[in-house]
Amino acid sequence: MSDAMPDFSKGACYLNGTYVPMSEAKIPVGDWGFVHSDVTYDVVHVKDGAFFRLEDHLDRFERSLKGFRLTPPVTRDQMREILGRCVALSGLKDAFVAMVSTRGVPRIYGSRKPMDCDNTFIAYAAPWVDVIPPAVQERGAHLLVASVPRISPKSLNPTYKNYCWRDFVQGLWEAHDKGFDTAVLIDQDGYLTEGSGFNVFIVKGKQVLTPDRGALEGVTRRSVLDLCPELGLEGKITPITLQDLMEADEVFTSTTAGGVMPCARVNDHIMNNDRPGPISVKLKELYWKKHAEGWHMTPVNYADPDHPFVKAA
Amino acid sequence: MSDAMPDFSKGACYLNGTYVPMSEAKIPVGDWGFVHSDVTYDVVHVKDGAFFRLEDHLDRFERSLKGFRLTPPVTRDQMREILGRCVALSGLKDAFVAMVSTRGVPRIYGSRKPMDCDNTFIAYAAPWVDVIPPAVQERGAHLLVASVPRISPKSLNPTYKNYCWRDFVQGLWEAHDKGFDTAVLIDQDGYLTEGSGFNVFIVKGKQVLTPDRGALEGVTRRSVLDLCPELGLEGKITPITLQDLMEADEVFTSTTAGGVMPCARVNDHIMNNDRPGPISVKLKELYWKKHAEGWHMTPVNYADPDHPFVKAA
Ligand SMILES: Cc1ncc(COP(=O)(O)O)c(C=O)c1O
Ligand SMILES: Cc1ncc(COP(=O)(O)O)c(C=O)c1O
Repeated sequence: MSDAMPDFSKGACYLNGTYVPMSEAKIPVGDWGFVHSDVTYDVVHVKDGAFFRLEDHLDRFERSLKGFRLTPPVTRDQMREILGRCVALSGLKDAFVAMVSTRGVPRIYGSRKPMDCDNTFIAYAAPWVDVIPPAVQERGAHLLVASVPRISPKSLNPTYKNYCWRDFVQGLWEAHDKGFDTAVLIDQDGYLTEGSGFNVFIVKGKQVLTPDRGALEGVTRRSVLDLCPELGLEGKITPITLQDLMEADEVFTSTTAGGVMPCARVNDHIMNNDRPGPISVKLKELYWKKHAEGWHMTPVNYADPDHPFVKAA
Repeated sequence: MSDAMPDFSKGACYLNGTYVPMSEAKIPVGDWGFVHSDVTYDVVHVKDGAFFRLEDHLDRFERSLKGFRLTPPVTRDQMREILGRCVALSGLKDAFVAMVSTRGVPRIYGSRKPMDCDNTFIAYAAPWVDVIPPAVQERGAHLLVASVPRISPKSLNPTYKNYCWRDFVQGLWEAHDKGFDTAVLIDQDGYLTEGSGFNVFIVKGKQVLTPDRGALEGVTRRSVLDLCPELGLEGKITPITLQDLMEADEVFTSTTAGGVMPCARVNDHIMNNDRPGPISVKLKELYWKKHAEGWHMTPVNYADPDHPFVKAA
């Protein structure tokens, strides 16, 4: 490797013990993380130079690793350091920071035993971007309840963060075909679950409800539930039927990749005169106000050590 | 790229218009094929320097591409040429040859629209290896009926070849934990489906039966059904319950990655004195005899054009 500093401005990735620009962040085509979707991940965001709820993301990542029996070759302390280093190298003040562990490539060529693989740890910091574009958030997103049912929790535990998104991707196609912004999925029993990268909430009076099944335990979801009392609202994790969804006063989604994002339509159900609902907007504003106040924020150390990108963690 | 011929002996890969050794065959960590398992593939084998049922694999690959709305930037004729070129470069006479198409990386950073991605085409030839090791095939494989149900066809169409293997991987762990060689999955209604990379057959008298649901339309399965009449057997695609499986005279699996592979045990059910069953063995032998006779074989052109690895297809 040359001594010149690579260009990390489009993102910095930790891979196989070194730091590389995003353009070099690649995995082998034979990694089980790719060929069997045998991988888990988590994504934390950095806002104004500080991580939001970093330890909660690390906690969930550890639960996902355990759930899928993945053992990356780094400790939690090393992960935390690597994540910070990726952000520092990129220089980004607003970023998504991903941590990924794949099963890896079998040590014995052709083996079909998961234990014959050395699990990997990959991390990267990339520029912030909203899952739902800001203009769409302004007018309120249009959600389609997709016809494809969510993969059953019996076959895949949705509380372990995973890349097995075939059902979501099919839902996204259907949404775009029908002129909607994005899709949410119902399970095979008719209960609301989540969407492609976000949790879903419905508002009914002073109640702010989110599904108890088929969904990731979102960190943003947790934040919304934490903030409800401050606004005199009752946040609750509970079964939600398709009918509950269609009769909601308001609907919003929550995700690390954008925060609280109000919706104006679900299928042909138009809410709040086709605009974001007042409670959704209040929660959104409070969520960002709390960020600015330092709630659950951990500053990134941007001090740049000598050539960190050639050093193993 | 230098003018020296790379070492393709461990496999040759077509990637972004050039040919590279397997060690360089990598995809970006942001490719939707990885982060959303939004990818399809197919695998054909080469035996004694000839492809087996190449057009059937290309047919199925085209059906999978269409099913997942993937449009790789190559025609079927180009695919066929690329696959042959990968084998020729590797020099392998016995090989697996994979064709893969991923959604790709969004052209617009952060987009969640599948149509904002340029779909890829990747192909590679790698040395032959049996999914079930030869020694295990000799004694007859031990199958576990895993407790995780197969992902429902309603959520993911299993006739489109996919990498969404979380259910299979969980089944593999359970099999290995309990001392079995591999796992087969039952669907949520109690019907037999398939295993991690293979179809399943049961033998009952002169009947050779394979599930009508939850499974890939295997090319090897097709071959077995084609060959049954030659041995006075009746091959049939039909519903198979767990009970049918547990009461079978014989059980075998079928896959490109090994052909017909007899089993000796399913859970605690021991068949044929704990050895491969006679009908399974006959089908296995006939399958390979047919190969030697050139049945459905297309010879690879190993003639080596000048520096093919620097030329786009
Ligand atoms: C499937 C799915 N559901 C929900 C979420 C929201 O979780 P969080 O708020 O922790 O980002 C995500 C995260 O991106 C997700 O991928
Ligand atoms: C899930 C699954 N089922 C069945 C098969 C067998 O299909 P084929 O005989 O075409 O290789 C495969 C192929 O590898 C597979 O991945």
